[in-house]
Amino acid sequence: MTDRLNITLLGSKFMGRAHSNAWSQVGRFFDVHPRPVLHTVVARNAAELADFAKQWDWANYTTDWNAAVTADETDLVDIATPNRAHREAAIVALEAGKHVACEKPLAATLEDAEAMAAAAAAAPGRTFVWFNYRRVPAVALAHRIVASGALGRIYHARASYLQSWGGPNTPLLWRFQGDIAGSGAHGDLNAHIVDAVRFITGEEITSVEGAIEETFIEERELLDGSAGDDISRNGAIGRSTVDDAVLFLSRLSGGGIASFEATRLATGYSNANRIEIHGESGALRFNFERMNELGYFRDDLEGSERGWTTIDVTRGADGHPYAGAWWPPGHGLGYEHGFVNQARDIVAVIGRGEPEVPLPDFADALQTQRVLQAAIDSAREHQPIQIEQP
Amino acid sequence: MTDRLNITLLGSKFMGRAHSNAWSQVGRFFDVHPRPVLHTVVARNAAELADFAKQWDWANYTTDWNAAVTADETDLVDIATPNRAHREAAIVALEAGKHVACEKPLAATLEDAEAMAAAAAAAPGRTFVWFNYRRVPAVALAHRIVASGALGRIYHARASYLQSWGGPNTPLLWRFQGDIAGSGAHGDLNAHIVDAVRFITGEEITSVEGAIEETFIEERELLDGSAGDDISRNGAIGRSTVDDAVLFLSRLSGGGIASFEATRLATGYSNANRIEIHGESGALRFNFERMNELGYFRDDLEGSERGWTTIDVTRGADGHPYAGAWWPPGHGLGYEHGFVNQARDIVAVIGRGEPEVPLPDFADALQTQRVLQAAIDSAREHQPIQIEQP
Amino acid sequence: MTDRLNITLLGSKFMGRAHSNAWSQVGRFFDVHPRPVLHTVVARNAAELADFAKQWDWANYTTDWNAAVTADETDLVDIATPNRAHREAAIVALEAGKHVACEKPLAATLEDAEAMAAAAAAAPGRTFVWFNYRRVPAVALAHRIVASGALGRIYHARASYLQSWGGPNTPLLWRFQGDIAGSGAHGDLNAHIVDAVRFITGEEITSVEGAIEETFIEERELLDGSAGDDISRNGAIGRSTVDDAVLFLSRLSGGGIASFEATRLATGYSNANRIEIHGESGALRFNFERMNELGYFRDDLEGSERGWTTIDVTRGADGHPYAGAWWPPGHGLGYEHGFVNQARDIVAVIGRGEPEVPLPDFADALQTQRVLQAAIDSAREHQPIQIEQP
Amino acid sequence: MTDRLNITLLGSKFMGRAHSNAWSQVGRFFDVHPRPVLHTVVARNAAELADFAKQWDWANYTTDWNAAVTADETDLVDIATPNRAHREAAIVALEAGKHVACEKPLAATLEDAEAMAAAAAAAPGRTFVWFNYRRVPAVALAHRIVASGALGRIYHARASYLQSWGGPNTPLLWRFQGDIAGSGAHGDLNAHIVDAVRFITGEEITSVEGAIEETFIEERELLDGSAGDDISRNGAIGRSTVDDAVLFLSRLSGGGIASFEATRLATGYSNANRIEIHGESGALRFNFERMNELGYFRDDLEGSERGWTTIDVTRGADGHPYAGAWWPPGHGLGYEHGFVNQARDIVAVIGRGEPEVPLPDFADALQTQRVLQAAIDSAREHQPIQIEQP
Repeated sequence: MTDRLNITLLGSKFMGRAHSNAWSQVGRFFDVHPRPVLHTVVARNAAELADFAKQWDWANYTTDWNAAVTADETDLVDIATPNRAHREAAIVALEAGKHVACEKPLAATLEDAEAMAAAAAAAPGRTFVWFNYRRVPAVALAHRIVASGALGRIYHARASYLQSWGGPNTPLLWRFQGDIAGSGAHGDLNAHIVDAVRFITGEEITSVEGAIEETFIEERELLDGSAGDDISRNGAIGRSTVDDAVLFLSRLSGGGIASFEATRLATGYSNANRIEIHGESGALRFNFERMNELGYFRDDLEGSERGWTTIDVTRGADGHPYAGAWWPPGHGLGYEHGFVNQARDIVAVIGRGEPEVPLPDFADALQTQRVLQAAIDSAREHQPIQIEQP
Repeated sequence: MTDRLNITLLGSKFMGRAHSNAWSQVGRFFDVHPRPVLHTVVARNAAELADFAKQWDWANYTTDWNAAVTADETDLVDIATPNRAHREAAIVALEAGKHVACEKPLAATLEDAEAMAAAAAAAPGRTFVWFNYRRVPAVALAHRIVASGALGRIYHARASYLQSWGGPNTPLLWRFQGDIAGSGAHGDLNAHIVDAVRFITGEEITSVEGAIEETFIEERELLDGSAGDDISRNGAIGRSTVDDAVLFLSRLSGGGIASFEATRLATGYSNANRIEIHGESGALRFNFERMNELGYFRDDLEGSERGWTTIDVTRGADGHPYAGAWWPPGHGLGYEHGFVNQARDIVAVIGRGEPEVPLPDFADALQTQRVLQAAIDSAREHQPIQIEQP
Repeated sequence: MTDRLNITLLGSKFMGRAHSNAWSQVGRFFDVHPRPVLHTVVARNAAELADFAKQWDWANYTTDWNAAVTADETDLVDIATPNRAHREAAIVALEAGKHVACEKPLAATLEDAEAMAAAAAAAPGRTFVWFNYRRVPAVALAHRIVASGALGRIYHARASYLQSWGGPNTPLLWRFQGDIAGSGAHGDLNAHIVDAVRFITGEEITSVEGAIEETFIEERELLDGSAGDDISRNGAIGRSTVDDAVLFLSRLSGGGIASFEATRLATGYSNANRIEIHGESGALRFNFERMNELGYFRDDLEGSERGWTTIDVTRGADGHPYAGAWWPPGHGLGYEHGFVNQARDIVAVIGRGEPEVPLPDFADALQTQRVLQAAIDSAREHQPIQIEQP
Repeated sequence: MTDRLNITLLGSKFMGRAHSNAWSQVGRFFDVHPRPVLHTVVARNAAELADFAKQWDWANYTTDWNAAVTADETDLVDIATPNRAHREAAIVALEAGKHVACEKPLAATLEDAEAMAAAAAAAPGRTFVWFNYRRVPAVALAHRIVASGALGRIYHARASYLQSWGGPNTPLLWRFQGDIAGSGAHGDLNAHIVDAVRFITGEEITSVEGAIEETFIEERELLDGSAGDDISRNGAIGRSTVDDAVLFLSRLSGGGIASFEATRLATGYSNANRIEIHGESGALRFNFERMNELGYFRDDLEGSERGWTTIDVTRGADGHPYAGAWWPPGHGLGYEHGFVNQARDIVAVIGRGEPEVPLPDFADALQTQRVLQAAIDSAREHQPIQIEQP
């Protein structure tokens, strides 16, 4: 094995930028082997692509994704396209023997996810899914605390991912089009918190007991060129075919209860990814709005001194995950650092090293997809749904 | 009408103290007419009762509740007993022509609540239910802001009432005995937040779409004398016959979605009564842990200056509800003040004045009871339940 | 000794109300012996006085303070008048053999304070000063934590008391008139935080190293009847003769450093009394805006779990000061409870019991007055001032 | 002018990393002209230098700073060395016609700073000082709000920069050696907050009214090779020759008051850079611990709705400084982004564009240095010091 890991990235939008940044920053802050190389970036718009490649120092760029994915020089295929496109690219890459890192959710449908997981099981490459919030240091620390047994039996997990950009003035972007996005807030946001609850608690979600799927804003302004062929049109207005919000109630494999909420209409919250876990001897809480803090309540403190401890998770010398690679204590990280941290762990695994905390592969992400599907089924069938377990 | 309002109080435990305090403090801080008189207190334990009456300056005390309730001198019967006892006392009082103020929830069962509301409708007395959180100034202000139209259409209400005293070491108190308490966290805590969401939004809850009712701790230590006759015993261990937690998802009459959670096993939270409301042009949030603060997000601020405003609701000169009666700005109130504020409004209504914000009567509280019943039905029948509307 | 403690209260304004409430509530929540009796209230305005006495159930009222103070029936004289009037009342009371509880600051001038402390030393009565913030449970707990040695050597104390009601539109109330008030923010607010730092750290303030005394608003509108004879007038405008803000830097007897700031022009803060203490092995922080919380940082937690613990100080069963007398955990207290708690301790000391935490007497409050005087001397003389030690 | 800006960086420690990151990231997120090129890095340790250069993609490296600084190819000299070394490098660079960007504080002594500012005034190159906190978006927004006049007259500025790494177990690093560092917490931390108060308020600091300079820990363990020749030794123990904490009180040119505190012994705070500004019609507060938030209190809101608004400053579309270049709303920035933002503005100024908010040059930073010197003089001379104004 050489010490180079050639990356081929598919996608140049929001996630394309976040991944490009991760691959270019990881070697600056971590000692990584093999060393990732920004080899080729792929996107559909040839005109914009050249600028993107230059901006981010991608050595090559092309609109021919299949050629790039299967090229001999490609070691890792990084998929940052809309959800509908994950399946084909991933399977081609896996069959070509590549490692694959795929944006979350794993796929637009459970069927796609199953096919991808099956392909992964049959292929030599390693697979990864960019559930970047696992690599926010506070979330990684939460995982470790629960894994240590400090919380005991888990009674409650309470997760909500609240955004507010989906008001009536927002036009019919691709994220509101079911044939491209697969779903709305559900796949975009619930995917993250379902993964996070599974990751932090170490438990599986065994059922959905009740759910609501809601599209508050049914019609949105069409953008030029924004709409796929199958958009239902009404003049300049198109029909949104995804949920604006999905809420559901679940049971956990250890006997606890979990609630989930994803919405794009939580006025006041730009990106409030919030998780609370209550165990019999402690509790944890996290809010991405204050991403460098983890709240920890522990029963073993002297009674009069018990309370929620706000841990500033920036202290490498104190063992905070990933912190040692960055800045001195109190010099906090931002959104993109979760991706850089994940790039570090992906490279570590490929190089036969250890990730800081467990990485999700396709099989793991398939289980999250089953939960998402069960929530939709429960909402539409008006009944509880049991979830197939791994 | 004289300027005296003779109170007969039933109950001398936690709520008996809170009500006694309310009646004795209200005249110190508010200009009330008629003036409440602590006339008679009723409880079962004669030995403790004398001390209680002396402590709180009740002029009389007795164990004969029926005589006290129906006595000519009684103007208002204040019911602060366990839930199972509400119905009989309230109906006797109403039939005797008294005003009645009843602790929440209105009753232990929907059937009881319906009987009480029917009796109220047929009687000359006024009825009140002690949903004290309506009279926490921040909650009253939230009601006013929504009523002004500032939030526009409501998309989401998210309410949770989180306590943690119900761990496995807590013995089988009456609050864990269904035949006395009616329910566990549900009637105790969800009752408050269902009322609060109805009060703040001004909307009704039209359905329960899914629910979980859970008893995490099924067996608890029996206390001497604590257990009713019908407790299932296993040596010194008895069976808990109430929920420890109930979560449910609902729809609102204006098209929005509401979620509710009540639990006694949220390690880390002693009394976190939390409500968030998101409308199309603003949002509100309240947490009783910081009861003198109301969070308000408004879209009409200049873009770069938008954010959550934390309103310190202690400024009478600025129109904060009830604040003018108490202390200067920044000198916050505590838990018991909601009861004193409610005493002020009860007296105002009886004296043909206006409450600061609407008071719940039996008919209003019956609607909250219907929601609670629907949640239980949904959890047990595993299907959505439509709620009868007023 | 009888079981009655007859109180004679001087003053019926803000502090008159707070003290009346304390004396009437203390017996409801604490088991106190002797039992305080609201015997006589004294104020200058005879017309308003009758109403006040009725409102608060004072048995008697009079405008003749000397007669009331020296009356045989009076056991405790409670002084809640403007600062200039403290000295005479206190000395008359002490010479008549009474116990005396005096509002803070002890006096309007250091000379007055010295005279009062001398009188106290020579008299049989006990003396008390209403530094009510000592009895806010979070502050009392802070005192206990430092006293336990948990913080080790103290490096820093940082205290500020920030209000904002002193803007240019506020008229020339008595609090802006030096001949009545003695000083402005300094005596009103710095008095509290100087006492609090001494109380929490258990150390004395040994010097003032530098200070600023500032009157931002030099002229204010005269109110009818508000101005004393010696106000400098300019039509309807009078000259403010007190500070709006005083800041100073000090050294502590244990080698640490303390900073103090009091202001009436901290726009945005109604009543932010904030104290932070940093020791070699821990730290504490308190903000009265969230009075039921104490922040505690402790070095002895496992490194990755260290952080600021927010202690909700409402848990009587966990030993939180005063909490057991009030409500269940999480049912917070308000501003006036500090006074009720202090009434409990005053009665305890008179009844030869123990206060929950140390009470300040005149000798103790004299030391705080010396610090206040040193700050003013330093500001005016532009040099450090050493402080006489007890 | 070419579109390349060749950077020569001096220093490869903490600040060397932060600057390297800034220069490599700026072109990824901002459209910058000229485009910065990581041309040469200079440091003393040749062995480590090669690795550093490779890690950060510096094209060249050398231990010969003079040659690198004066090389024809160098356009901008970026000084990230200990403070004592700033002067010589800056003056050589300026005399060679280079632009110079210097870490803060400008110099180790006022004399050095004056010489540097004089050299800058006489040279063609532009100068910049890395007061990176100006470019934290919340601080930049605070500057804009004050500049808009929204706060009116400024009454108070309250700034503290609190760290805790200077306990007795910390060895005698160069930062504790006066001959290298110039000062301790004062130059390291007060430099930042003096600059920030000047920047946000737009006012000058006209005097120091009182000050304390304190070295709590006088002796520290010597590290091998850590100590300069002139360290006072006592076996393995050396004497700290810098302050651990400096506090001072000042007056502002607009009539307000400012307080400053810097310490390395604020147990519990890793990096709490806190600033509060109170004006007659509004107030602002910032704490770097929550760097993506700005607190804003404005008097012009309806009375009952007034409060502190917490602005999440991540919304480019709402005009938050720098935010548009980074991620969607709610996806916060971290510590290093202030440097990247400053790199953007340095390049903009060199390219004859506009910085987002004013950049400090040597003349500006000299004024901050005068304030720092006045604080030390006041502490040592025990008297107020007037400050020379620009």
